[in-house]
Amino acid sequence: MRNIDEHTITAAVLDRMSGCEDARLKEVMSALVRHLHDFAREVKLTEAEWAAGIDFLTATGQKCDAQRQEFILLSDTLGLSMLTVAMNHAKSPQATEATVFGPFHVAGAPQLPLGSDIAGGAVGEPLFVEASVRGRDGEPIADAVVDVWEADAEGFYDVQRPGDHPQGRAVFRTNAEGRLWFRGVAPVAYPIPTDGPVGAMLRATRRHPWRPAHVHFMIQAPGYETLITHVFREGDPYLDSDAVFGVRSSLIGNFAAHAPGRAPDGSLQDGPFHTLDFAFVLERQAPGNCAAQSG
Amino acid sequence: MRNIDEHTITAAVLDRMSGCEDARLKEVMSALVRHLHDFAREVKLTEAEWAAGIDFLTATGQKCDAQRQEFILLSDTLGLSMLTVAMNHAKSPQATEATVFGPFHVAGAPQLPLGSDIAGGAVGEPLFVEASVRGRDGEPIADAVVDVWEADAEGFYDVQRPGDHPQGRAVFRTNAEGRLWFRGVAPVAYPIPTDGPVGAMLRATRRHPWRPAHVHFMIQAPGYETLITHVFREGDPYLDSDAVFGVRSSLIGNFAAHAPGRAPDGSLQDGPFHTLDFAFVLERQAPGNCAAQSG
Ligand SMILES: [Cu+2]
Ligand SMILES: [Fe+3]
Ligand SMILES: [Fe+3]
Repeated sequence: MRNIDEHTITAAVLDRMSGCEDARLKEVMSALVRHLHDFAREVKLTEAEWAAGIDFLTATGQKCDAQRQEFILLSDTLGLSMLTVAMNHAKSPQATEATVFGPFHVAGAPQLPLGSDIAGGAVGEPLFVEASVRGRDGEPIADAVVDVWEADAEGFYDVQRPGDHPQGRAVFRTNAEGRLWFRGVAPVAYPIPTDGPVGAMLRATRRHPWRPAHVHFMIQAPGYETLITHVFREGDPYLDSDAVFGVRSSLIGNFAAHAPGRAPDGSLQDGPFHTLDFAFVLERQAPGNCAAQSG
Repeated sequence: MRNIDEHTITAAVLDRMSGCEDARLKEVMSALVRHLHDFAREVKLTEAEWAAGIDFLTATGQKCDAQRQEFILLSDTLGLSMLTVAMNHAKSPQATEATVFGPFHVAGAPQLPLGSDIAGGAVGEPLFVEASVRGRDGEPIADAVVDVWEADAEGFYDVQRPGDHPQGRAVFRTNAEGRLWFRGVAPVAYPIPTDGPVGAMLRATRRHPWRPAHVHFMIQAPGYETLITHVFREGDPYLDSDAVFGVRSSLIGNFAAHAPGRAPDGSLQDGPFHTLDFAFVLERQAPGNCAAQSG
């Protein structure tokens, strides 16, 4: 095909994929090309803007390394991550809602016994978490694998710090009653990393980079859909303007503040500490329903 | 805003940019978000597909370096580059048409006197190019800066070879009659680089990576719109299926093949050689028209 113009090029690109036998890949790529072209035509993208886009995407890829995932950050801030999560999880009124995975999960975090302190030296006031993991009919889910990760009181995850000593992350297993308890640090609101292209995009569009304080949970159990979610801190000023659009009312927990004294683990705290109780409810895996989760 | 779902999230993201004072940036980013979300909703993007997309974009960025621009290759193969070029260049019947810039231009190529051999040792049969550069009213354009770049007979640009010795690229200036002549090598069809994510995408969608044989030209002269184009080789089998959708009939030139003998530069060739005559016609720059060009 010769002499393609801005109107005929979309059909030309789609036609070029006509030999693709993977029907789903073809569907996704065709839709991608159509929407990409429609975008460029709608705004009449200039060549300078095209070049700026190439540079932006290149810089975004080059900011990524083992500790940093700038494309997830981009997807999160453009709302694509939350959109994908929302589409793929039925919102049954009983089950705990999912939210964004985020860029800070690390596979293979230390497996710790219930009651452990996950801080690993992270700065922050102590937080004592107690949680239950149940199915929709109230049945306790024993031996569920629970990944927990959180930032410290300065708003940084361990992977944002030098060294590779795990801080604020661990994997637990629920006990026979489907219960889980551990000690960590009280989360604070934090800005997503702004030293890369995504930060530049937020500044250029006059958006703030803040996320309301939260603790991340990923809960996996045979026969149940994997739940990837957060518990947000009630009262946080950023609950209504999360930079990544992840807040759901049902995920706001009561992080109770306590004066110095006896903590839930029996220890005597000489400074203020916090407690959080939260009940997670997992959806049963539909027969034949793929449990594939991102990340 | 809390409890965003897959339908309300688009408005939420657009609303977040409401403070952006750069009207054009806001327009472009808003359209990008709308089309990106529409794409994800239309195909009901799964979380595994989202993750595959993140990995693909990350790998594309990480494939880029000083010699390799994988995002331009992606844009080229998805038709976005040609779409952008087509939208931004009025197709006056007289002026030479533009086509894709491609990922292989190098700024600061050697400035050579007219008549030079640009091969620099590149393999290939000799090609003797003669070209004129004129305005639409036929006026010769003297002293135009003409960037030329081409692949060798094995289909590689110098930047795809080890070392940094320039081969197959140079910058010339037209003489007082707006004429230009030089020696290079006869171009051949070549596959775009397929050892990266874009190659994987082409294989997965059953697309071939070939481009018809061509020589690249970028011509700049004060008062005229910069022309970024190719001259394609008549008869090439890929003229109707260029992997990057860049072919225009008006850009197909006659690369005449000659038996051994006297070449246009007076030299005696003991093997076959080729000649190309081509007339470039530049558009006058509209007053107040921005001459910004990609790359
Ligand atoms: Cu669209
Ligand atoms: Fe987080
Ligand atoms: Fe080329």
